[in-house]
Amino acid sequence: MALPFTAMSTPLEDAMDTLIRIFHHYSGKEGDRYKLSKGELKELLTSELTDFLSGQKDSLLVDKIMKDLDSNKDNEVDFNEFVILVAALTVACNDFVEEQLKKEGF
Amino acid sequence: MALPFTAMSTPLEDAMDTLIRIFHHYSGKEGDRYKLSKGELKELLTSELTDFLSGQKDSLLVDKIMKDLDSNKDNEVDFNEFVILVAALTVACNDFVEEQLKKEGF
Repeated sequence: MALPFTAMSTPLEDAMDTLIRIFHHYSGKEGDRYKLSKGELKELLTSELTDFLSGQKDSLLVDKIMKDLDSNKDNEVDFNEFVILVAALTVACNDFVEEQLKKEGF
Repeated sequence: MALPFTAMSTPLEDAMDTLIRIFHHYSGKEGDRYKLSKGELKELLTSELTDFLSGQKDSLLVDKIMKDLDSNKDNEVDFNEFVILVAALTVACNDFVEEQLKKEGF
């Protein structure tokens, strides 16, 4: 896959590259190559966000996430919708990190 | 810094971790430890998004980005505002990637 970054990329550029690569790895499996079906989304979440999902006992979680993310109601998740999920999770993780840092007196 | 992920993290979890670490590396340099001043934002952008900025000849770009991101008008960028920038840039990169893939017949 030809990404717009050069070979000498920074960690932040690598992280952005990772989001794009992971999305397309799963979205290309079936149906629309550029969207995640519910099955593809479930496979991505269980394989790539293991720590996040391991604490969840809710078997309907993937359905709930799909419903929340699928803002245009086509029962598929496009890249923009996927990035919103990752952004929301990262903000939640950062809230946890900042809380810990403040507790430790930073 | 104690992040909520275990040692056995996935590439997607590593990417989220990278966003948090990079933000705090720069936000901790001066003033509010949990927000980027204009100077810290400029340093982050020029050091960590070199490919993105190298094509830009606009010396006022950092001022424009700060103005766009700083939704609560405190002249600083918090983590939520930073993640919105990264998400928007990643969506732009993905648009480019998908256009290339479609041209190549995928």
